[in-house]
Amino acid sequence: MDNPQVTCSIAMSLDGFTAGKNQSFENPFGDNFDPDLLRRWMFQEPEKNNHKKEIDAILDAGAFIMGSNMFGPANRRDSPEWKGWWGEEPPYHAPVFVLTHQQRDPIEMAGGTTFNFITEGVESALIQAKKVAGDRNISVAGGASTVNQFLAAGLIDELWLHIVPVTIGIGTRLFEGVPPLLLEPIEVGGTSVVTHIRYRILK
Amino acid sequence: MDNPQVTCSIAMSLDGFTAGKNQSFENPFGDNFDPDLLRRWMFQEPEKNNHKKEIDAILDAGAFIMGSNMFGPANRRDSPEWKGWWGEEPPYHAPVFVLTHQQRDPIEMAGGTTFNFITEGVESALIQAKKVAGDRNISVAGGASTVNQFLAAGLIDELWLHIVPVTIGIGTRLFEGVPPLLLEPIEVGGTSVVTHIRYRILK
Repeated sequence: MDNPQVTCSIAMSLDGFTAGKNQSFENPFGDNFDPDLLRRWMFQEPEKNNHKKEIDAILDAGAFIMGSNMFGPANRRDSPEWKGWWGEEPPYHAPVFVLTHQQRDPIEMAGGTTFNFITEGVESALIQAKKVAGDRNISVAGGASTVNQFLAAGLIDELWLHIVPVTIGIGTRLFEGVPPLLLEPIEVGGTSVVTHIRYRILK
Repeated sequence: MDNPQVTCSIAMSLDGFTAGKNQSFENPFGDNFDPDLLRRWMFQEPEKNNHKKEIDAILDAGAFIMGSNMFGPANRRDSPEWKGWWGEEPPYHAPVFVLTHQQRDPIEMAGGTTFNFITEGVESALIQAKKVAGDRNISVAGGASTVNQFLAAGLIDELWLHIVPVTIGIGTRLFEGVPPLLLEPIEVGGTSVVTHIRYRILK
């Protein structure tokens, strides 16, 4: 890739949901979306199936942007003790900009991840992410509501979809409230537990 | 394939719609779903891109089942003059069972297609289709509402999805009202204008 891209890599069910209903600390993906089904492609023989490459690509960015709901569940994320889901050394190894309504000091984690809290919305987050990403991609990490805001604002260059072969019927939908998009699949692949499609967003 | 399968081959937008809103004689796929975008994979260099094989597979069945809305628009389909969208020689070349509420005599078309009208619902249509299909597959041709009824009843073995790289935001959704499904992608491919995924439905 020549120029740094704004990418979004996200898993969704075949019927378009990135999470089910009633997301909580106990059920981060909702009470009707089995996380084993959602994530088994990452953990089930990742080397053999070339999923390692996909996972590395997801995490290969100079900065990340995520919504507050991805950072933490509603009743915990604003507590000073909450430092995300990922333990002492999150897998990002880069600055992460968390969209929130609650001002909070940055949190430095082990391994180069810093959580920075942004209260001015998606465009401000993107400007700040670009400042630190250098010549590397910026990744919009999720969840759907944040991705949908970026899509609606026309700010994403490439959408890397991981389509999990289940339908769940109810939950948080990707593309909800996003004006019609025209895309181009530029790479397609997968295994018996996931289909990867990399889209370029044309307009 | 050893045993005849009940298959469904259907095109949908990336956000899950098989047709837009306000379907009519003038706009069979609705007024917000450009048929050129929906169908260009069938007509844009089909030989080169191996789409010919896909199209042949769609039409290779011993019997077809379709909903009344696929057979014709609401204000025309019950007229004795209406014989479907496909001209004198429809591409099916086999018996087609049309789910309807209006009793009507069969219509014999050129090339082996016969439209038979079924008023007793999806299971009755499937029984009658199996009687004439011999050792060939039975194809549920569409539209979404008919496919969803078959999916909800657990009657489809393989779902062949043609994911068109657009989002349209509103229309008729595949999987609407269908209980959660577990599937397995068994073939994936495509070009810059469509992604084909062949799913086996596990439960």
